[in-house]
Amino acid sequence: MSEREELGRASFEWAKAHMPVFELAERYLKKRETGRNLFQGIHLAACLHVSKETAVLIDSLHSFGAEVQLVAANPLSSQDDIASFLKSRGVSVFARSGESPEEYTASIEAAAKCSPDLIVDDGGELHVAYSATDSTGCKGGTDETTSGTVRLKALADQGKLRYPVVPVNEAKTKHLFDNKYGSGQSTIDGLLRATGLLLSGKSVVVAGYGWVGRGVALRTRGMGARVIVTEVDGLKALEAHLDGFEVLRMIEAAEQGDIFLTCTGQIDILRAEHFQKMKDGAMLGNVGHFDREIDVPALYRLGRNTEEVRKNITRIELERGKSLYVLCQGRVVNLVAGEGHPPEIMQLSFANQLLSLCYLIDHENELRKEKRKLLQFPEEIDSLVTGFAMEGFHLKIDKLTERQRDYASSYYSP
Amino acid sequence: MSEREELGRASFEWAKAHMPVFELAERYLKKRETGRNLFQGIHLAACLHVSKETAVLIDSLHSFGAEVQLVAANPLSSQDDIASFLKSRGVSVFARSGESPEEYTASIEAAAKCSPDLIVDDGGELHVAYSATDSTGCKGGTDETTSGTVRLKALADQGKLRYPVVPVNEAKTKHLFDNKYGSGQSTIDGLLRATGLLLSGKSVVVAGYGWVGRGVALRTRGMGARVIVTEVDGLKALEAHLDGFEVLRMIEAAEQGDIFLTCTGQIDILRAEHFQKMKDGAMLGNVGHFDREIDVPALYRLGRNTEEVRKNITRIELERGKSLYVLCQGRVVNLVAGEGHPPEIMQLSFANQLLSLCYLIDHENELRKEKRKLLQFPEEIDSLVTGFAMEGFHLKIDKLTERQRDYASSYYSP
Amino acid sequence: MSEREELGRASFEWAKAHMPVFELAERYLKKRETGRNLFQGIHLAACLHVSKETAVLIDSLHSFGAEVQLVAANPLSSQDDIASFLKSRGVSVFARSGESPEEYTASIEAAAKCSPDLIVDDGGELHVAYSATDSTGCKGGTDETTSGTVRLKALADQGKLRYPVVPVNEAKTKHLFDNKYGSGQSTIDGLLRATGLLLSGKSVVVAGYGWVGRGVALRTRGMGARVIVTEVDGLKALEAHLDGFEVLRMIEAAEQGDIFLTCTGQIDILRAEHFQKMKDGAMLGNVGHFDREIDVPALYRLGRNTEEVRKNITRIELERGKSLYVLCQGRVVNLVAGEGHPPEIMQLSFANQLLSLCYLIDHENELRKEKRKLLQFPEEIDSLVTGFAMEGFHLKIDKLTERQRDYASSYYSP
Amino acid sequence: MSEREELGRASFEWAKAHMPVFELAERYLKKRETGRNLFQGIHLAACLHVSKETAVLIDSLHSFGAEVQLVAANPLSSQDDIASFLKSRGVSVFARSGESPEEYTASIEAAAKCSPDLIVDDGGELHVAYSATDSTGCKGGTDETTSGTVRLKALADQGKLRYPVVPVNEAKTKHLFDNKYGSGQSTIDGLLRATGLLLSGKSVVVAGYGWVGRGVALRTRGMGARVIVTEVDGLKALEAHLDGFEVLRMIEAAEQGDIFLTCTGQIDILRAEHFQKMKDGAMLGNVGHFDREIDVPALYRLGRNTEEVRKNITRIELERGKSLYVLCQGRVVNLVAGEGHPPEIMQLSFANQLLSLCYLIDHENELRKEKRKLLQFPEEIDSLVTGFAMEGFHLKIDKLTERQRDYASSYYSP
Repeated sequence: MSEREELGRASFEWAKAHMPVFELAERYLKKRETGRNLFQGIHLAACLHVSKETAVLIDSLHSFGAEVQLVAANPLSSQDDIASFLKSRGVSVFARSGESPEEYTASIEAAAKCSPDLIVDDGGELHVAYSATDSTGCKGGTDETTSGTVRLKALADQGKLRYPVVPVNEAKTKHLFDNKYGSGQSTIDGLLRATGLLLSGKSVVVAGYGWVGRGVALRTRGMGARVIVTEVDGLKALEAHLDGFEVLRMIEAAEQGDIFLTCTGQIDILRAEHFQKMKDGAMLGNVGHFDREIDVPALYRLGRNTEEVRKNITRIELERGKSLYVLCQGRVVNLVAGEGHPPEIMQLSFANQLLSLCYLIDHENELRKEKRKLLQFPEEIDSLVTGFAMEGFHLKIDKLTERQRDYASSYYSP
Repeated sequence: MSEREELGRASFEWAKAHMPVFELAERYLKKRETGRNLFQGIHLAACLHVSKETAVLIDSLHSFGAEVQLVAANPLSSQDDIASFLKSRGVSVFARSGESPEEYTASIEAAAKCSPDLIVDDGGELHVAYSATDSTGCKGGTDETTSGTVRLKALADQGKLRYPVVPVNEAKTKHLFDNKYGSGQSTIDGLLRATGLLLSGKSVVVAGYGWVGRGVALRTRGMGARVIVTEVDGLKALEAHLDGFEVLRMIEAAEQGDIFLTCTGQIDILRAEHFQKMKDGAMLGNVGHFDREIDVPALYRLGRNTEEVRKNITRIELERGKSLYVLCQGRVVNLVAGEGHPPEIMQLSFANQLLSLCYLIDHENELRKEKRKLLQFPEEIDSLVTGFAMEGFHLKIDKLTERQRDYASSYYSP
Repeated sequence: MSEREELGRASFEWAKAHMPVFELAERYLKKRETGRNLFQGIHLAACLHVSKETAVLIDSLHSFGAEVQLVAANPLSSQDDIASFLKSRGVSVFARSGESPEEYTASIEAAAKCSPDLIVDDGGELHVAYSATDSTGCKGGTDETTSGTVRLKALADQGKLRYPVVPVNEAKTKHLFDNKYGSGQSTIDGLLRATGLLLSGKSVVVAGYGWVGRGVALRTRGMGARVIVTEVDGLKALEAHLDGFEVLRMIEAAEQGDIFLTCTGQIDILRAEHFQKMKDGAMLGNVGHFDREIDVPALYRLGRNTEEVRKNITRIELERGKSLYVLCQGRVVNLVAGEGHPPEIMQLSFANQLLSLCYLIDHENELRKEKRKLLQFPEEIDSLVTGFAMEGFHLKIDKLTERQRDYASSYYSP
Repeated sequence: MSEREELGRASFEWAKAHMPVFELAERYLKKRETGRNLFQGIHLAACLHVSKETAVLIDSLHSFGAEVQLVAANPLSSQDDIASFLKSRGVSVFARSGESPEEYTASIEAAAKCSPDLIVDDGGELHVAYSATDSTGCKGGTDETTSGTVRLKALADQGKLRYPVVPVNEAKTKHLFDNKYGSGQSTIDGLLRATGLLLSGKSVVVAGYGWVGRGVALRTRGMGARVIVTEVDGLKALEAHLDGFEVLRMIEAAEQGDIFLTCTGQIDILRAEHFQKMKDGAMLGNVGHFDREIDVPALYRLGRNTEEVRKNITRIELERGKSLYVLCQGRVVNLVAGEGHPPEIMQLSFANQLLSLCYLIDHENELRKEKRKLLQFPEEIDSLVTGFAMEGFHLKIDKLTERQRDYASSYYSP
């Protein structure tokens, strides 16, 4: 085994040792009649961040018999040692750290053309690519993110989705944990590694107060920052306000922020009009799936000079002697500069992925007839994962007594 | 005006001055064709906590032409000065502070028998009472709480609900704010007034991590307490765990708590087996709607001696020289010992109430044909209230650009 | 026993039951040779807030043989039931709730003229009054507050202090707890009772980031407020900044605050120039000892109309239709509107008081020769109280091993 | 310039750009008559962590004319690119990442023997080494840490300190910021990089609640952990308790911790008796200066098998199939696994260092006569640095009015 493979193996082992919830899901599936042959003969294409936790999912699918082809969900987030390790296990991996946008797109398109039976995606890119092919054999797919769910909905609405997709992000055991606690911590991780700077006392502007944004707001506050939130949704704005955050429009927040973090799933959150208001030295980072939340091209156009001053930090000098810093070229800072979500979080998301793929196989016939292609997330999977989580996290909770169960369905005066 | 009425009027004015969101809802209705005559000729029965904020709602309904009959939602939570003030305005009030359980029940039953056209309830008690009468004229109703929604569902499932009910608690602008931030603060208010004791360093056991429980956990932690959470739902237990709270079964938590706060909507949360494990001097308080969360009768049976040692605190001496303290006889501590939710919160809940009552009038004909009696909460009301809240709280948020709106419904690679 | 005495007795018992640290100090003194006669024949004048916790200290001094004369430390903070109870125990009390400033001053002056042997003060008022008399017999005194310590220092510097004074506020077991956790909680208590309004989302301006200010900033943030700090000391300003608070000059903060809380021990913190910048509806409260932190007279001069709109809240209508609200007439909001510091905190402060008074008796002869009249706080008292606190709070800590003790005094390479 | 030097230069520039407070101190000194020649002819030996921030200090001393010899303060914390960069600037650096304990000690001893005029130390190791030589020419020194201050005190008490030392750690602008906010953040940084694991929901045991411990407790809580504190000092234990942390003896905490962090400056904090109680999978990290807080040798003796499972993580398999993980071989986790304190913090500490060295030169003659070799930290330096900090952090604070200044020194009734 090469040194790189060995490093990858060690990372994989470390992650696996901290993913007991995923292991419980695996064990549950192994007890079925099909056992280890669950995905025998299945060609599975996966577009995911090539991280140590992903390796645990992919290795499991592989060991359940699937023939797996893995491509990167982001050109900058792949870890080469993990890729090497997975290759050594017999997985086809087309991903490398720092690949060009062209390579990245080409790998996804190639995967789409290889007639996969199942598609596992993170962001919807592979589903979109498949929809542009003539292939028809795909039995179903899943997707991991809010961004992907939005795009799949658009795809389905326009009649372009040709197979059933389980939106894993809709699982409560996914978005309540991965999006909030996962993004919260991994954003701190990414920020600390990228910048090495102090967070206490900094004014951090968090764009978006969805699950990701509130995780990021919570943890940056936890590190001592003063947090300002921007929103387009009144309800979330009011929650942010009552959580003690300042709520401003971006055009006002732009003048106050030391660090900006976009968490919206939208585009053009930080754009020319905002760059012009920002303070010298402000840092711009993105936590959303795509590199479109910060309008980096517009920033480059405004700048007179551009320099990589530290790994993952580009300084853009603007007209009046003012510089701004872009982190990770506007790509997801927690995965490019940091290690991504920790294994204890990914075990929940990937247990959902594994069980969702199994669900697609189990219900293949009914689902073929189903007109609604973007499925509701199956409640039974959420229940299963919750149960595994209780065991994996060693949590002990109360059970309803018989009297309490009765009470819950009665209307008599208590 | 008597001194008591005058005190009530001052409280009413103070609340009203801090409820601009409610006022915007009122103004919105006044602009309709019906104007001030919206509830003309309507006999409305309301079962609510008789507080300064409730006075604002009731006075508004009254000024819109309704003939209002108000009874207490809890025998201990009524404020006599508010009752006097409302009577002086022409409202029929049957509620007094410290009324007996018999008086309390009799007032509700009397209200149910007076053939109301609309019923506004808090806990479902009045709806249940109406269902036991032969009356048929009720056009519709609302309810304010989780407890009420559960009971109304049971009532509807058994075919006993004879008119449409809007479950106001289901409004996002209600439960996300009233249940969480309202209960969070008013529980601190109730605890401080009832006990006068230090919260920092105390071990506080919060039973239930729903919206109420998480508000209470957040604020008791914010006051310096160490918080332990108990749950019956795995998902909520995992959230509590990742929010940094200890999660224990009540039988273990019982040994550690200095203060216990039940926030479940269930019964028998604290019962004999728990009392026996508790430390000397532990305090038991309830934040749920009904006084059934702590099994107070069982505690009295275990005790050898009972004494009211301070207003709203009863000491029960148990066998082995150990004493426990029950707050407010097990009735909702934030309303009995404290002032209840602050007006800035109640304005959201009551704007929803007002608009829901208007909705019942507006849709009377369609709703009569509707089989489902417990309605879904109308989204348009939530949107209206959110808009009023932006104005009332002076919050300014961003608007989606055209490009962003397009993006939200497209699937193309960004 | 009258009903009022009975209420006072109950409050006293409740406080006493939650002051085990004070009881341990008492028990420690009782074991001395003098036993219960420690203060036999001593005439002790005390100027303190007449609260349930003070009753515990005063009753103890009385039962140790002292002849006690108690006057109020603030005209608005006295609790009449406590005064009645103490009178029934044989203490001379000259204090009543809502006494006029003249009565208040007269009582202090009268106490100063009664030739006390020992003086217990809170704010230095009684010491200052004594310094203006011809009396000479005073053996020593104590003081409870930062404000008092500052004034005693000035008195001593000008040669007007004629007896040794122990500045109890300097005890670590006093100011680290009473000033921070005590003021933090009791300010929330005072705010909630005075206003009944929501704290979440409010902009709270805390003037001063000393021990009191940081307690207040911590707890208002804990209740969901956005906190802004003002300071005159750079070091404290930097701490506040790194604790994630905004630091502004008052003239800028004035425009942003919904609630202002002065915690400085200084005068004129909020003055005409600030009132003019404030938003309509802003609330002004003081947590400092004297009613000089908010320049209330200046505010009244600016106002065209003044009204008490709720107990402890005065509305002042300013020229341009803008109103401000003053809490408790600018007097200490946590004692006037709230119950003051909880007994678990006061037990530390008053254990220090009790032991300091004993120290003055024990060292009477040496101290007579001592030139420095404002003493250093005796470390041995802090140690004693820390030990009692470990027992009273049931805290178990580690002990240094022999190797660790050696290490602490060695320089060898570890 | 080699690639390594270039990397070092970039890091240095990045740090320098975020250390305006240090730059203000430099500029202040340059304005003196001596200007850039302040340390001309001075041979300065420095034992510091070779980090990007240290490079800023060393480069400054060098540019003020000092001939600098730099050795590592820890065998694992040196950054090779920084060392290369400093060498390229003409500094003698004897430090490399991962040097053996023997090399580390030899470098320190060599530096001690080179007859330095000034010694800058971090931990006291170089001062101790110098005391073992026959040299006499040293004019003075400084030290950066609590650990160093303790050892210097021991050295001075035993008459072995032959020159004046300024204990920089005693500066308020040092320990209130570096020890608390610096260690707080850099420990999170070290933990995240070393383990890649989730902090939310973990039980973290923090040994010691001094400035370092409270920074670490604050930030681990801020990341969602449940924090348990151990102490030997009652006062600090009580503060931790009232800050809402559980306080336990280590022997009890050992059973509950998922992660242990020692922050004491002592030895043997985690030892055999504790390892035996710990849960499988517990992680042990040290934040104190020396690698003696965790008794790593004892742990190795207990283990049957040892493996480096990830960079900076060693798994020790204990008898009963239980494994523990040691981070960074028990060496300071924030510097070995993380990047150390951020530049915004180090600028305060190093401004104090720079001004302290200047102080030693300026007062050389008086200090030679001074018997007390471990000096009090000069207040004027703290004041200077506070002033620079106001400017560097862009903080604006209020000034006392004349009336307020008068008030602060008067005793008249307010």
